[in-house]
Amino acid sequence: MTLGGAPAAARLDRESRVAQGDHEALRLWLRLLACTTLIETSVRSALRRDFDCTLPRLDLMSKLERHPEGLRMGELSRRMMVTGGNVTGITDQLVKEGLVTREAPPDDRRACVVKLTPTGRKALLRMAEAQAAWVARLFAGLSAAECRQLHALLAKLKASATASARSEAA
Amino acid sequence: MTLGGAPAAARLDRESRVAQGDHEALRLWLRLLACTTLIETSVRSALRRDFDCTLPRLDLMSKLERHPEGLRMGELSRRMMVTGGNVTGITDQLVKEGLVTREAPPDDRRACVVKLTPTGRKALLRMAEAQAAWVARLFAGLSAAECRQLHALLAKLKASATASARSEAA
Repeated sequence: MTLGGAPAAARLDRESRVAQGDHEALRLWLRLLACTTLIETSVRSALRRDFDCTLPRLDLMSKLERHPEGLRMGELSRRMMVTGGNVTGITDQLVKEGLVTREAPPDDRRACVVKLTPTGRKALLRMAEAQAAWVARLFAGLSAAECRQLHALLAKLKASATASARSEAA
Repeated sequence: MTLGGAPAAARLDRESRVAQGDHEALRLWLRLLACTTLIETSVRSALRRDFDCTLPRLDLMSKLERHPEGLRMGELSRRMMVTGGNVTGITDQLVKEGLVTREAPPDDRRACVVKLTPTGRKALLRMAEAQAAWVARLFAGLSAAECRQLHALLAKLKASATASARSEAA
């Protein structure tokens, strides 16, 4: 999401005083965003179609899968990658469907820990499998070598963006 | 946003029956998503810090910049790339600040067209300039050649994902 796509950016660019290198980076960012949005939209729609499931719901279940000991509601909220999902509402629904449990741990009766049930775990595995297959279809136009190259460049970008964000915050 | 990051995906992968190629695509998708989220978070925070502006607000102003003739509220909503932004609320606020106007066109008094004012356009140009500079800093770890390579690979991915999404829909 940003300046309305590359054409707008290019036009704005001619009028404002954006340096050439900055302009290239902005175009690259718009391209990156377009790819992400395209894939995310496709995954969301397949998830709804095949599993009647939403991304925040899948995200929440995945977080629990990584923590067999369970997560408190606050931790769960912090770990969610999707914004806009209502963690309490999703959890209530999953409890109702028998996919997660919510219980107070013996050492702290005031806290509330959410865990994936065996049924929930199986449901998650099925969705993970399907998701991998959908995503593979979306990437099908790239050769194995191109995928490796893209992976390496994105690793470099991740490191660069992390370093830059850190120095901004410092 | 998705299956809780690459480690979880790898673990799920061993237990479920995800094909090797599918697994690579999933890892690539998670990496792409991580980069996008990192950059978007950084841009959001700089936008707030330096311009007291949000992404949906910038998005809306950018859409209007591309349409000097103005956009109806419905069109504006459809064109927004950011979800969760309240188009009516943002427009009300921008009208109050003199950055956009909302008026009924002479040929259809019931419709309502939103336009960027000259002041709004200037404000948008300043933000566009700053955004390009922020983004350039985030990409600073990549050489010009690597940026070109990444751009080309993302173009290929965009084409592949578009074709796949189209054949799914057909």
